[in-house]
Amino acid sequence: MTETTILTVPALEERVKAIFLRAGLNDVQAGAVTRVIVAGERDACKSHGIYRIEGALRTVKAGKVKPDAVPTAAVEDGSAIVRVDARGGFANAAVELGIPLLAERARAFGLAALVVNDCSHFSALWPEVEAITAQGLAGIVMCPSYATVAPTGGSKPLLGTNPFAFGWPRKDSAPYVFDFATSVAARGEIELHRRAGKSLPEGWAIDADGNPTTDPEAALAGAMLPFGGHKGSAIGTMIELLAGILIGDLTSPEVLDYLGTTTLSPFHGELLLAFSPEAFAKGRPGDPFARAETLFETIVGQGARLPSQRRFAARARSASDGIALTAAEIAQLDRLLEKGLDAIV
Amino acid sequence: MTETTILTVPALEERVKAIFLRAGLNDVQAGAVTRVIVAGERDACKSHGIYRIEGALRTVKAGKVKPDAVPTAAVEDGSAIVRVDARGGFANAAVELGIPLLAERARAFGLAALVVNDCSHFSALWPEVEAITAQGLAGIVMCPSYATVAPTGGSKPLLGTNPFAFGWPRKDSAPYVFDFATSVAARGEIELHRRAGKSLPEGWAIDADGNPTTDPEAALAGAMLPFGGHKGSAIGTMIELLAGILIGDLTSPEVLDYLGTTTLSPFHGELLLAFSPEAFAKGRPGDPFARAETLFETIVGQGARLPSQRRFAARARSASDGIALTAAEIAQLDRLLEKGLDAIV
Repeated sequence: MTETTILTVPALEERVKAIFLRAGLNDVQAGAVTRVIVAGERDACKSHGIYRIEGALRTVKAGKVKPDAVPTAAVEDGSAIVRVDARGGFANAAVELGIPLLAERARAFGLAALVVNDCSHFSALWPEVEAITAQGLAGIVMCPSYATVAPTGGSKPLLGTNPFAFGWPRKDSAPYVFDFATSVAARGEIELHRRAGKSLPEGWAIDADGNPTTDPEAALAGAMLPFGGHKGSAIGTMIELLAGILIGDLTSPEVLDYLGTTTLSPFHGELLLAFSPEAFAKGRPGDPFARAETLFETIVGQGARLPSQRRFAARARSASDGIALTAAEIAQLDRLLEKGLDAIV
Repeated sequence: MTETTILTVPALEERVKAIFLRAGLNDVQAGAVTRVIVAGERDACKSHGIYRIEGALRTVKAGKVKPDAVPTAAVEDGSAIVRVDARGGFANAAVELGIPLLAERARAFGLAALVVNDCSHFSALWPEVEAITAQGLAGIVMCPSYATVAPTGGSKPLLGTNPFAFGWPRKDSAPYVFDFATSVAARGEIELHRRAGKSLPEGWAIDADGNPTTDPEAALAGAMLPFGGHKGSAIGTMIELLAGILIGDLTSPEVLDYLGTTTLSPFHGELLLAFSPEAFAKGRPGDPFARAETLFETIVGQGARLPSQRRFAARARSASDGIALTAAEIAQLDRLLEKGLDAIV
């Protein structure tokens, strides 16, 4: 018999935040990391939910993120670039600090960029895209990762799984949002195949000699492949250039050198772009928000889905019915609260 | 025996421009369209070379582009958006007018956007990306097309082949540049398979009922598919939103409604973004240009290729040896010059 406990979203937030405070995070770090983890759990996106708490604590314990960092923002007069120095902390607190400044600049200039430097990235980009759309702006967010993906035609890990995310604000419903890895599959999926003793689908990975493989062990020793062949490889490379080199932060191979492992949150920077529909569409025919609804209706009307709809449905259920956690999950939360960083081996 | 004629790049430019002037284009339109067509021929990118002259003239003859348009630029104080109204002419003249203004704004604000409205798009995006990198800036360029691609999970043409292009400036060599359709294949490739009586590879297209097909006729009556499954579909949708709706210009289904055919140059807008590496990397360790070279060396060092290298090699050959045209190609240029728009049936 599976016993489940139902928690409201605020109740789960309280529990998770207590764990991070117990582990030594300051209020700004604990609050921000908690919000994204609970958002994942709330949206039934289990791979980015409470399962991630241990990874965050492991990164703290390894000394690869500063649990007491207080991010600082800098905006120069006349610049459309907002800079937030995460000061070695998690990206989330830095992004929370930067979003209102990004929105103000995007409204003033039409478009603006938020550069986050020296952060431990955690963990999906959709919460950040949704923070931009919540301001009534369209947004693009990207960051490197660790070198685990071979460029098309290559044989060695070089690019990260480099996520690319985009959002468009909608007035009467959840935003249009996508967020995907530029690798064919997430590294975690290869790990899941390995644990289950299953072969990988073809086209996911190459072995250490650069030959195609469906063996998860060989894939983990080799490299993953970009999605969409040379096109995905090009987008992954663009992300290294824009969200690594352009912003003066680490590229995926540099991240892996620095961490020496892919089991900790990657340390690097992040690039967020925001666009004001009012500013861009000014003086042109049609209302951009209404026109976007027409596009979405046409997509849905032919049986295709808009991305993130499963998450939004789960979000509505969590708001009305609460979040159900298994007895094992509750026990794990209790253990993490009790032991703090000692729970991490 | 195949007779070929060798022309220098300027000599070919002179011939092509004379054709456009003869067909009624004004100097600014003829010059700009000629430059991109000759750039395609020079780079051995035959699908975007002199072969395209007829398509441009067909669009003029159909009254779907204004041959005597003079684009105008508008820049508001304190805005990072540069707007060029193409006034119904080809995009190329509008982009040439806007690029220096875009560069000035990107240097001032760190990043900037060039919006081109009411243009007939012609024809690849890499010349535009290269115009940005020639200013020492990184750039992203995108535009819609005609509705010929079904969103993943859908069954009807809705998205365009929506090209996405990116460039990074390099100090001692040609830039890092990619430019690709967000469909699996270009529409022209399906047409080539049809003419050759060959089946399409699987995964390129669906028929009019939404079922997978390898029959080119059925594909042309149905829809093409996005590259990379739902990820490419999402990027194609993003391009409709940013380079259509955000900038107050037509989406791919609206373009097809307006033209009623896919045989004319698509009429819509275009979005160009420019990023200043100096502004973004300011105060951070490392020189972004040198760091990018390290990344490129690592890619090439493992046997992968950088995109556009074949074009750049052809460009060097054209500069030293000239451009070789067949007797049939020369005859066609002569015919177009002699007959003007009457050559188009």
